[in-house]
Amino acid sequence: MPQLGFLHGRAWAALLGQLRRPPGAVCIGAVRSHSQVAEATLASQLKPHKEKPNFILKTPKGTRDFSPQQMVVREKILDMVVSCFKRHGAKRLDTPAFELKEMLTERYGEDSGLIYDLKDQGGELLSLRYDLTVPFARYLAMNKVKKMKRYHVGKVWRRESPTIVQGRYREFCQCDFDIAGHFDPMIPDAECVKIMCEILSGLQLGDFLIKMSWKDVRHEMVAKRGLAPEVADRIGDYVQCHGGVSLVEDMLQDPELSRNKQALEGLGDLKLLFDYLTLFGIAEKISFDLSLARGLDYYTGVIYEAVLLQTPAQAGEEPLNVGSVAAGGRYDGLVGMFDPKGHTVPCVGLSIGVERIFSIVEQRMKTFGEKIRTTETQVFVATPQKNFLRERLKLIAELWDAGIKAELMYKNNPKLLTQLHYSEDMGIPLVVIIGEQELKEGFIKLRSVASREEVAIKRENLVAEIQKRLSES
Amino acid sequence: MPQLGFLHGRAWAALLGQLRRPPGAVCIGAVRSHSQVAEATLASQLKPHKEKPNFILKTPKGTRDFSPQQMVVREKILDMVVSCFKRHGAKRLDTPAFELKEMLTERYGEDSGLIYDLKDQGGELLSLRYDLTVPFARYLAMNKVKKMKRYHVGKVWRRESPTIVQGRYREFCQCDFDIAGHFDPMIPDAECVKIMCEILSGLQLGDFLIKMSWKDVRHEMVAKRGLAPEVADRIGDYVQCHGGVSLVEDMLQDPELSRNKQALEGLGDLKLLFDYLTLFGIAEKISFDLSLARGLDYYTGVIYEAVLLQTPAQAGEEPLNVGSVAAGGRYDGLVGMFDPKGHTVPCVGLSIGVERIFSIVEQRMKTFGEKIRTTETQVFVATPQKNFLRERLKLIAELWDAGIKAELMYKNNPKLLTQLHYSEDMGIPLVVIIGEQELKEGFIKLRSVASREEVAIKRENLVAEIQKRLSES
Repeated sequence: MPQLGFLHGRAWAALLGQLRRPPGAVCIGAVRSHSQVAEATLASQLKPHKEKPNFILKTPKGTRDFSPQQMVVREKILDMVVSCFKRHGAKRLDTPAFELKEMLTERYGEDSGLIYDLKDQGGELLSLRYDLTVPFARYLAMNKVKKMKRYHVGKVWRRESPTIVQGRYREFCQCDFDIAGHFDPMIPDAECVKIMCEILSGLQLGDFLIKMSWKDVRHEMVAKRGLAPEVADRIGDYVQCHGGVSLVEDMLQDPELSRNKQALEGLGDLKLLFDYLTLFGIAEKISFDLSLARGLDYYTGVIYEAVLLQTPAQAGEEPLNVGSVAAGGRYDGLVGMFDPKGHTVPCVGLSIGVERIFSIVEQRMKTFGEKIRTTETQVFVATPQKNFLRERLKLIAELWDAGIKAELMYKNNPKLLTQLHYSEDMGIPLVVIIGEQELKEGFIKLRSVASREEVAIKRENLVAEIQKRLSES
Repeated sequence: MPQLGFLHGRAWAALLGQLRRPPGAVCIGAVRSHSQVAEATLASQLKPHKEKPNFILKTPKGTRDFSPQQMVVREKILDMVVSCFKRHGAKRLDTPAFELKEMLTERYGEDSGLIYDLKDQGGELLSLRYDLTVPFARYLAMNKVKKMKRYHVGKVWRRESPTIVQGRYREFCQCDFDIAGHFDPMIPDAECVKIMCEILSGLQLGDFLIKMSWKDVRHEMVAKRGLAPEVADRIGDYVQCHGGVSLVEDMLQDPELSRNKQALEGLGDLKLLFDYLTLFGIAEKISFDLSLARGLDYYTGVIYEAVLLQTPAQAGEEPLNVGSVAAGGRYDGLVGMFDPKGHTVPCVGLSIGVERIFSIVEQRMKTFGEKIRTTETQVFVATPQKNFLRERLKLIAELWDAGIKAELMYKNNPKLLTQLHYSEDMGIPLVVIIGEQELKEGFIKLRSVASREEVAIKRENLVAEIQKRLSES
């Protein structure tokens, strides 16, 4: 996919470009000041506290806060994922964080013990959602929707033993894309695999492989299509080799398998899927893998899972499987479990494991010492004068009203150097400097932080000049 | 604020422009098809169901799903709110959906009974967050952050009796902006009020007023500054008149009040706030209101609340208070409640009630019969030929890889008319039509859905031509 790689490479470079900022001392927030408020609160600090906290300050086990630095990276990753979902024509859906407990019961097999229940405080019994798939199926059944292509980005909760080092948490974000409806075979399935490839290529996380689970296909054929177990095992023999489309071709040529109608049909579906993946230019990314036994209870067909072969930081080393970053599959029976009459809506979908991707990108940025801009501020409004707060406030309101992102210091008389340092540290490109003499003459100084160049601009042309500079950069 | 009004007016018009789509029959998803999968699932429908659902299909009380149509409107509103927060230099923060139960205990006074607790399944006792303010204070104390300007968009949960008609839910979204730190008086407070005005002007919800609660200021002066209650009541007399900066001036002239040092100081702060709001051009939007008694337990200073005076749909009628759409205030003591040594960080902030705003915009769109595009698809790939799925798949992959948003029908042999109708219904601007004869000659037809004009494009120029057309529109 040279075009895709190129396009997304540019996008990624742009992302990194946006994330980088000139080095300098880190400065959180704005400058300190001593003020009436400060004195008032200082006084209250000296008073003995009624409610001295007697607990450890922490977030619940397996959860975490996201700092502004982390949020910038997360949002860029989510934007790339969502823009891919939109490229494929998906609509956005949202569902509540909790469901009636009975909606989730018996959907997840032995994993059901990991569901967070809410306390019975009167009324309905509720549970936090465990994934976004079951709420989607509930939505389809409840609204009698027979076909829909939707995406959903949201948090889910699982009471797992958190192994933070692997990017596993009890609260985590899922990005799901699903296609529901009766369609011709393998076309939506192929699109889901294509989406996985586009997202993983676009994020430039390194080489990856999409593994298809044979176990479930085998189960499908044996249990649902009546394939004799010995024939299925024969297929299994082939699949243990790993392989792609050529393996399917070999199997279709096998005299024993080709005698069996169901095997031929199943292989026909697989061949069709590989055909479509070949047309999409991604067949070489796919491999069957019998050892892959993943899959939630509700899956009914082919399951696929994307694994990274190495992290970019480890380039040059032996390719290393760092685990699953995306997974998906077919679940044709789930909607029917919610429908009062058992009417089914076949579904296929995928889920992007953004937490793990986020861990990898964060680790990479640490390795390369990347600095991140956590605000988008374009202009800082400064002054070297004392008692010029009113002038600063009037001017900054004008900038805000013109849609320009601007900040100032919440201090009556800040030092000019402090204001300039803050602008530099925060990566703000422009500084407006209001001087008494210039203002009398109708001018304002505009400083470029990168070049440290300053020019005097006519007061009435200031907004236009700033907008011109920002549009050029 | 003529400039602000103009800018945001344009933005709003652009939003409505984006939301509108040509009228036509509604068509959810893609076309129907009969396929192997369909037959397979049909067969499974005929089998008796093991787990026939014996529950009512619904979302928990006070919660709801958001359909794609609703999500489009919500996202546009949230985008406008967030872009205002960014314009004021805020960083984004995120915290878990639940906190340790003890973090929330005793923070909300009598409202504490509305907190959702999680079931004790072993381990920590947890509660769903009730707002975004307490988690922010916990974050500041936990990370010893002394100053920060952050925004947070997220869901919160309250076990209230839902009165859906007023846009009140048990799960709802909050958009918070807060400034933490020791600064010179009233500068951050004024910025918070300015942000409220910018957002409400920008969303064009009609005329609004920001009411300041006097009750809490009075409490502040009496309890914390030692103002004699009779002097405070004297102030109260003034405030019952309603009023803005002129009222504060009158009070400063009052012989009884001006004899009292604390009253002078308090009035000085109020005057300062009005001064800054005047510089920001929004003083006429502010009114004191003694009747306003809102305020969560943790507020310590001035509280403000924005109310809409009428809904745009009711223009011409008597102005009607449709209730609060934004609220905020100062809470200087909250961080200290979390800090082991009781160190405080003064804070001021605001919260936008997006659910109510969303209800108003949704109602308005229903009234005006606005149609909404729920996808961003730019090109539909169609064919009049039978057995041309492979050509469609190859071509659409090329579009996707070039970053073009494209869809096709998941059917081997869809009818051309069905494909064109779908494109029209969904508001997709361009259709690529692959014909057998044209393809042999190296051409593809490109159809503009609006004008129904069709032109033949050289196959190799197709992507460039589509990109050109999309950039022009």
